[in-house]
This record gives sequence, structure tokens and C-alpha cells, in this order.
Amino acid sequence: MPELRKDPILGRWVIISVERGKRPADFAPMAHRKKGGFCPFCPGNEYTTPEETLAFRPPGSLPNKPGWSLRVMPNKFPALQAHGALNKMGEGIFDKMNGVGVHEVIVETPEHYQSLSTLPEKMVEDVLWAYYLRLTELRNDSRLKYVLIFKNEGEAAGASLEHSHSQLIGLPIVPRTVKDELKGSRAHYDLKERCIFCDIIYQELSDGRRVVAENEGYVALSPFAPRAPFETWILPKAHESAFSPQQKSFKALAELLQGILKRLDALLESPPYNYIIHTSPFTEEQNEYYHWHIELMPKLTKIAGFEWGSGFYINPTPPEEAARFMREVQV
Amino acid sequence: MPELRKDPILGRWVIISVERGKRPADFAPMAHRKKGGFCPFCPGNEYTTPEETLAFRPPGSLPNKPGWSLRVMPNKFPALQAHGALNKMGEGIFDKMNGVGVHEVIVETPEHYQSLSTLPEKMVEDVLWAYYLRLTELRNDSRLKYVLIFKNEGEAAGASLEHSHSQLIGLPIVPRTVKDELKGSRAHYDLKERCIFCDIIYQELSDGRRVVAENEGYVALSPFAPRAPFETWILPKAHESAFSPQQKSFKALAELLQGILKRLDALLESPPYNYIIHTSPFTEEQNEYYHWHIELMPKLTKIAGFEWGSGFYINPTPPEEAARFMREVQV
Repeated sequence: MPELRKDPILGRWVIISVERGKRPADFAPMAHRKKGGFCPFCPGNEYTTPEETLAFRPPGSLPNKPGWSLRVMPNKFPALQAHGALNKMGEGIFDKMNGVGVHEVIVETPEHYQSLSTLPEKMVEDVLWAYYLRLTELRNDSRLKYVLIFKNEGEAAGASLEHSHSQLIGLPIVPRTVKDELKGSRAHYDLKERCIFCDIIYQELSDGRRVVAENEGYVALSPFAPRAPFETWILPKAHESAFSPQQKSFKALAELLQGILKRLDALLESPPYNYIIHTSPFTEEQNEYYHWHIELMPKLTKIAGFEWGSGFYINPTPPEEAARFMREVQV
Repeated sequence: MPELRKDPILGRWVIISVERGKRPADFAPMAHRKKGGFCPFCPGNEYTTPEETLAFRPPGSLPNKPGWSLRVMPNKFPALQAHGALNKMGEGIFDKMNGVGVHEVIVETPEHYQSLSTLPEKMVEDVLWAYYLRLTELRNDSRLKYVLIFKNEGEAAGASLEHSHSQLIGLPIVPRTVKDELKGSRAHYDLKERCIFCDIIYQELSDGRRVVAENEGYVALSPFAPRAPFETWILPKAHESAFSPQQKSFKALAELLQGILKRLDALLESPPYNYIIHTSPFTEEQNEYYHWHIELMPKLTKIAGFEWGSGFYINPTPPEEAARFMREVQV
């Protein structure tokens, strides 16, 4: 079973694959490795993956067989292991726990060469529904404190398989970044009795320079202090603390998300990117201080010594310019 | 002038190049870009760089001319600008300041195809002396609160020039990562009246499984909770709060550092890597709670959505195995 270990100085957790550890030769430069043509996410290859936990398929089609338009299943090489009780231990001054958790893959389309920006908008809606349905289901697992939903697109952004997919990891602890965001949001709420994200949205919509796009329910912004060039956040305009549909629909969100992806594809030659859904933990899903949102970062620059050592980021593109380029590009 | 901007939720700072911002086309995939043969760090090309702030050269040789064995100069494309007073401002709910600071390059050898692992050990000592001398000099600049010294080796680790070099960035604020480390160390000291790093060194030397190498003055460890495979920390064995020579010598440190680099080269085919010197800020350089050290991370895995969203890291190689491979490799 993997192990969660805590850095004693920073309190930062890492997940260590203690059993099937990678040896030096496993890190040979990419060029030395063979690229296989086999895709476990393509229809017909369902037998090579763990059994599906959710699928959108026509009535009458069989589970774990072709016919699906979207399919969710446990990751075959999970970062955390689904079975067993949570067990916390010390090792001298160090702290660790066994790596209990959930790691699933959301295959967004049966077609190998489609991407989230090229799919019919309705299928992007389905992807958002799949996120929401799995989140709703996993809320019942009392070992889990948080479910992180994210997408890595392109090898440079960490995708190890080409076929378009997202991932979710259910964790036995609230991750540090989420804790820090909650802390910052609560501090603002304690001071002002307002949600800091609502304040940001109000200021950005009045100012306009960093607004990329908006529709009736959502706004896409270049944040004031972006870590990366063309970093974009998508937020519900009205206060919502947890990821959920608006009036039982993900249509407006799918439209805005896909619009942003199309713009990035046009501006930056289909760049690799990561996006992450930032939402409230299960124990405090409905609250006044935290505002769920999507953070999307094209992978255009590299994390280097300065970023590792300082926690600062150097961003060569001002968000005002990034927003302008994104507003003006033809898609 | 560049701008320092603060994320209002996390308090994270970013450095934004507001004047000469990169446009979308500047991020074209590497393959589209021309690789130039000209190297501004090679002897004879001194006229293409800003004037040196330090150089090791034989008596009688002229500044900014060939003859040097090591050369330090301002970065031609600095992340921060050296001239002007520090000016803090608000922008509605956002905070920013002008990007005052120092950004220098330490060219470690006149020879284009040498690296820190292949140089004579005496020249690695010189690199450490150059770090120390610049740090000592920059302590007099009252605008600076911290100087971060780091090295990016290889394109994947963020090096934009091939010729072996390190960098230093002097900052008007103590960076977040350093603040967090100081906070963690102080909390331990308040509880135990001991330095947490001294406690770690004691436990690791007794245990032995994560010790990579040691000599009279220093120890190299695979940390208990490493972010990356083969991450290695080098620490002075006795308590030292700020980066400095031992008995006026950097010989023991140079020996251990170069030994680690040689082992990584042998095990991982000269991997790209980053290292960072973690030292106390100028205002509290001599203290009982913080222990300066070097953190070195080969660049073998990618930062992806999960890491961005959680602040967790997934490390496929247990540090006990990494340390064993590094102890056993022949160099």
C-alpha cells in the first residue's frame, strides 16, 4: 500500500509508492522509451481496465463493454489504494499514514483523437455531470475528507495517456492548498463578512481589463496575480461554495469552459494544460466564505529553482494582456 | 519595471513582467525555435553581458575580459530591477509593489561543455565562495530582505542557457517558502528548545537507511518525505543557521555536493536538476531554530493537476531505496 508522509518542517504531505518503487532505469529519458500503440481507454479495450464506477451508455448496452460515450473507472495504477482502514503512525519524529483513498479516471470520449475543446458542447456538459455524480457518490465514504478533480492535457502537463481524460483523487485529509485557501477566505470573511471571491468578481467585472469572457452564470478571468502566462479562472458569478450545477444544468459552465479551451488552442497552438476544480471540503460544503471555481493553467513555462525555493512565480505575461489576447482571438 | 503582485486569497507573490510582456507567439513549442550557437557566457563574449560584479581571475587580467575562471554579473533579462526605491501600492482589494531587487548569474567555468559534476573539485569550492561573497556584499543593500541562490541544470529544469551557471535573486520580501520553513522550525523550537533539523540529522544518522553520504562537516540525506525521486538534502552536521564556510573552507561541502552530482549523473544519465540554498533571512541570520541546507531535486517527474491543486506530491521512489541506489552506485 502507498504511504502518506509528512514533511516535519513544512507539514507538506507526499504520497510515496513504497511497494512498487521506481528504480533509476525507469526514469530513462523519454526518447529511450517505446511508444505503444495500444490505448486502454479506447472502446473494445474495457477488459484491460478496472471495472467502471459510472458510464453514460445507451439503454441495453452492457457494463464494461463498448457503447459508452463517457466512462469512469478506478486508475489501474492508483496513487492511493481503495481498500482498508486508515491507519496513522509515527516513525521517531516523523508522521505517516497508509495511503487509503480513491483514484479514478474519467474518460471523456470514446474517440481517441478528440479533446475537450473539439467535442460537441453537450459532451463537455456530460464530463461536468460525471465529476458531480462521482463527487456526490464519494461523499458517502467516511474515510475521505476531500475529492480533488483535475485534468492534465498533454505530456508536458503530466498526462501519461493521450486519450482525453480527467482524474479524481479522494483523500483522507484536506490538502494543504485547499486548507490555505479556506484559511485566507475565512480571514477575509471574519474581517468584512463578505466572500473574498465575490469581492474579486465585483471588482474585476467593474474594471474589465482582466475579464476574458462571461455568460449568465459564470465569468472567466485572468487573475490579478497569475502564476503562469494565460492562467484563467472560471467562477460562478453568484456565491456558490461547492461545485454543483446551476438550475440542474451544466450548460452555461460547459459553454464557458470549452470557449476558454478553444481560445487557448487558437492562441497557443493547442498547449498542454492543467485544470483543477477548487471546491469546499465535505465537512463544510455549504458556507459563506469559500467560492468554488476552476483554475486552468497552460503549461508554457517551467518550474525552476527560484520557484521551488521561494514559492514565488515569475510570469512573463501580464494578465491584462493575456485577457486581451484571449478576448480578441477568433474561434 | 517588473511588478510584484500578491494573490489576495493565498498571499502568494508573483513577479509580472509588465513592460516587455511575452505574447502568445513567444510560447511556440521549442521545436519551432532556432537554437543559436552563440553563448554569452563563453570567454571573449563578455562585452555582450552587463559588467561583472565579481570574478576570479589571475592578477593583472582586466575586468570584463577573458582570463577569468568564474564570473558573476547581473542577469541581462532580470526578473527584478536593481535601481529605484521600493514602492508599495494597492489596486482596489489587490496589493502590489514595484519589482525592485537584484538578479545575478554566476558563470561557474569558462568552458562551455563542463558541468558542476565534471569540474575540478577546487572550482566547485570557488562556486560556493562566489555564492558566499555575493551574499555578504548584498547584505548591505537595505532594500533586500532575502537572497535566494539556486541552480537550474538542463532545459527541463528551467535552464535557458547551456553553459554551466547558477543564479541569485535578492528580494524585497522574505519569500513564502522560507517564511513557512522558519515558522515550522520556530514552532518546534518553542516546543522542544531544539532545532528540528538537528533532531532530523540525529535520527537519520542513527537510522542510516536514508543517509546517502557524509564527511566530517556535512551529511547528505534522502529526506523522509521527498517531493521528487532522488531528492537529496545536504546539511551541516553541527547547527549553523546561515550559509557560510566551515573553518574558512568550503572544501568539505564542495566534496559532498560534487559527490552527489556525480552519483546522480551515474544513476540517472546526467539528469536535469534544481538545487536551492535554504538559509536564514538577513534580519535573523544567527539563530537557534533554523539550520541552513541545500535541497537538490533531479527533474524526473512532472508537476501536474494533482500537485497544483493539493500542494501534495506523488513520489514513485521511496527515499530509502533512492538512498540505497545512491550509496551503492560506482562513481
